[in-house]
Amino acid sequence: MKSHTEYLTFETAKKREYINITPLVAKALRGSAIKEGMILVSAMHITAGVWVNDAEDGLLQDIDQWLEHLAPYQEDYQHHHTGETNGDAHLKSLLVHHQVIVPVTARKLDLGPWQQIYYAEFDGQRPKRVIIKVMGE
Amino acid sequence: MKSHTEYLTFETAKKREYINITPLVAKALRGSAIKEGMILVSAMHITAGVWVNDAEDGLLQDIDQWLEHLAPYQEDYQHHHTGETNGDAHLKSLLVHHQVIVPVTARKLDLGPWQQIYYAEFDGQRPKRVIIKVMGE
Amino acid sequence: MKSHTEYLTFETAKKREYINITPLVAKALRGSAIKEGMILVSAMHITAGVWVNDAEDGLLQDIDQWLEHLAPYQEDYQHHHTGETNGDAHLKSLLVHHQVIVPVTARKLDLGPWQQIYYAEFDGQRPKRVIIKVMGE
Repeated sequence: MKSHTEYLTFETAKKREYINITPLVAKALRGSAIKEGMILVSAMHITAGVWVNDAEDGLLQDIDQWLEHLAPYQEDYQHHHTGETNGDAHLKSLLVHHQVIVPVTARKLDLGPWQQIYYAEFDGQRPKRVIIKVMGE
Repeated sequence: MKSHTEYLTFETAKKREYINITPLVAKALRGSAIKEGMILVSAMHITAGVWVNDAEDGLLQDIDQWLEHLAPYQEDYQHHHTGETNGDAHLKSLLVHHQVIVPVTARKLDLGPWQQIYYAEFDGQRPKRVIIKVMGE
Repeated sequence: MKSHTEYLTFETAKKREYINITPLVAKALRGSAIKEGMILVSAMHITAGVWVNDAEDGLLQDIDQWLEHLAPYQEDYQHHHTGETNGDAHLKSLLVHHQVIVPVTARKLDLGPWQQIYYAEFDGQRPKRVIIKVMGE
């Protein structure tokens, strides 16, 4: 098994932002020279997520509003007794999951026609990392 | 590392349907001749999910009702300005996740006694694909 | 590809409990002698979860309360016609997902500074298993 690891760093302008990282994952795959296997794409912070879904601006607004509804920003989380104010970002991260596995077949990301890989920032405005690990032959 | 890839296609009769695909994953494993490793089972569409849970009809009804409660079908998603009507299906997909990894030990799916692999269709009545990639030795 | 598999068993004192299993996963990695690859950490039951998030007691209380809000314990689940009373635990398991992949780089768990691996028990007080499978070179 061959392996190739890259780290991305994002520092978003807004607290919450959704970034299509599919081209960056494809670039890491090319750098790996791996033909067959898979890619782990995983947030290295506990207030961020990674998902595979549509690159459509209206949907991204829907997702943002829906996450805020199910895991709202509010002052009275227990976690805030530590001085933090990002309790909602932890819950949003748990809800969407912090990682995906992308299959690799014949040197390509083996995604369906509408599948795009997103980094979801829930507590931005500071540097946050994502690991991309390509594994295979 | 050896690798073996299969694609399944489902065209469900109903918009939402939950299909136990454990036998199909076990068959792909037998076809792979892999003894030790893992299997990625991943929906290739953004309005479907894959999960591991119980094969119990009452529970499947509970899950369906719960998903409809947390990510309801409704007309006023922003995504619907594109002409789509399936905003809820995208949110349901994010909620349950679109993929699982099944461990393989001694040529068998290494699942607990009640664990079954489900394909969850949230926007059916058209052909949708699932990738099964077995990786290991 | 080399592979190393361990099984953990937990029998929690309470119905719901959240256990930091990062040291146990690190121990399995050392036992594997694998330098580069990944670790699948996956609950073998359908009423439990595995996540990566913060080891902070206040946050764990927030998560517990939030899960109870989104997937409440209640009597009238369809699943309970089987004699079970744990419908909520199945839904909580789906919500947080039952598994994570931990990257391994240079013989170490390649986690961000605050990332800790948790076993989330939603229907405890009986023995429940988790599989740890290390795969790589």
